[in-house]
Amino acid sequence: MEFACKLSKYINRLMFHFNMEKIVAINPLWKRFRIVYASFMNILHIDSCALGDNSASRQITAATTAALTAANQHATVLYRDLAAAPLSHASGPLLQAISQRWDAGIPMNAELRAEALQSASLLQEFHDADVVVLGAPMHNFSVPSTLKAWLDRLLELQRTAAGEPRRSARLLLVTSGCGVTGADATEDLMRNHEQQLQAAFQYLGVQRMDVVRALDDVQAALALNRAA
Amino acid sequence: MEFACKLSKYINRLMFHFNMEKIVAINPLWKRFRIVYASFMNILHIDSCALGDNSASRQITAATTAALTAANQHATVLYRDLAAAPLSHASGPLLQAISQRWDAGIPMNAELRAEALQSASLLQEFHDADVVVLGAPMHNFSVPSTLKAWLDRLLELQRTAAGEPRRSARLLLVTSGCGVTGADATEDLMRNHEQQLQAAFQYLGVQRMDVVRALDDVQAALALNRAA
Repeated sequence: MEFACKLSKYINRLMFHFNMEKIVAINPLWKRFRIVYASFMNILHIDSCALGDNSASRQITAATTAALTAANQHATVLYRDLAAAPLSHASGPLLQAISQRWDAGIPMNAELRAEALQSASLLQEFHDADVVVLGAPMHNFSVPSTLKAWLDRLLELQRTAAGEPRRSARLLLVTSGCGVTGADATEDLMRNHEQQLQAAFQYLGVQRMDVVRALDDVQAALALNRAA
Repeated sequence: MEFACKLSKYINRLMFHFNMEKIVAINPLWKRFRIVYASFMNILHIDSCALGDNSASRQITAATTAALTAANQHATVLYRDLAAAPLSHASGPLLQAISQRWDAGIPMNAELRAEALQSASLLQEFHDADVVVLGAPMHNFSVPSTLKAWLDRLLELQRTAAGEPRRSARLLLVTSGCGVTGADATEDLMRNHEQQLQAAFQYLGVQRMDVVRALDDVQAALALNRAA
């Protein structure tokens, strides 16, 4: 059994390397090495609207994550609420630190170093996800400032690591529903908003992206993603 | 002379009320009441790019402010650096507080109250300005998060005060030059970025707006503004 476990881990590593579906276990109960496939799914669920429960975008992302976990019993969800626990605005020194433009001769402040490390882990969790469900509503004519602070870190790191091959997550981009903008959210402005986000995520290497504006779009997007 | 001074102040107050040009002084040296007109100009100069001196937008806003003050000896400049002294992300409670959706039965935290008061003074300084020179570059595909945090406060307040007549500043919107985006700043994305900002400032009641992308555009924009 120990051998089976080791073998399973080894094969998992191999398959991870080739970016294939993972093996849950080599089931020793059947007294022979039988490989049990399952499509593991790491879901990264992010919200950014500052309006809490009044935000339709939060309801849509929650419904999307629920649909994904219902369809996949091996799904794990990592949740990040950028409005409840906002990242600081990316300062000039932080941008220098995470893009490795920091002069090595100058000592780096401990808080800055911690922020740079945290930024790296944010990018890692983004690339580790199989599906990213992102609440990125238009609020006051553009992207919420908390989401922008998150994007700044990821984009800056990506710029430095450009060329490195990365796994590409599937992205479900929920762009509507941060309450008060309401009537100001004309079609043109929404399209602008979505194009900006799409450009940013294309830069991050995301190849499969679906824009979701309403609850009804979720099922269609999920089916699209499955077909992709 | 004291009377002249008082009269000048009184007329100034009257003219300010009717939103006309102010009188600098009733010059008593000529032994008669001679009214000296001068076009007083309050300039609000705002920068938001996090890249300090590496930012072309800062060079353009500085040059614009310099040109304005050179042309008008009575100009006063108020400078705000949103990257050096960032406002916090506008939280749900803050948005409620500044839009007067706060339940009066619930005590308001002192810090929150202070932030709400500060937000009101930010809108006031914006409307008090005759000219706003705003460094609003596209950085990482959209508006800097620090500028968004500032806009959130103003827009939220404006929503509450909608209908109140306001003086409308002239706005010079510097949309290019926050370093590293460089080649990603395609024409389409720049247009998106500018349209978002224009929609936000139209909402704030700004009627005269010029977009400046390069130093060469400054003189043209200033001339346009003078003609307006």
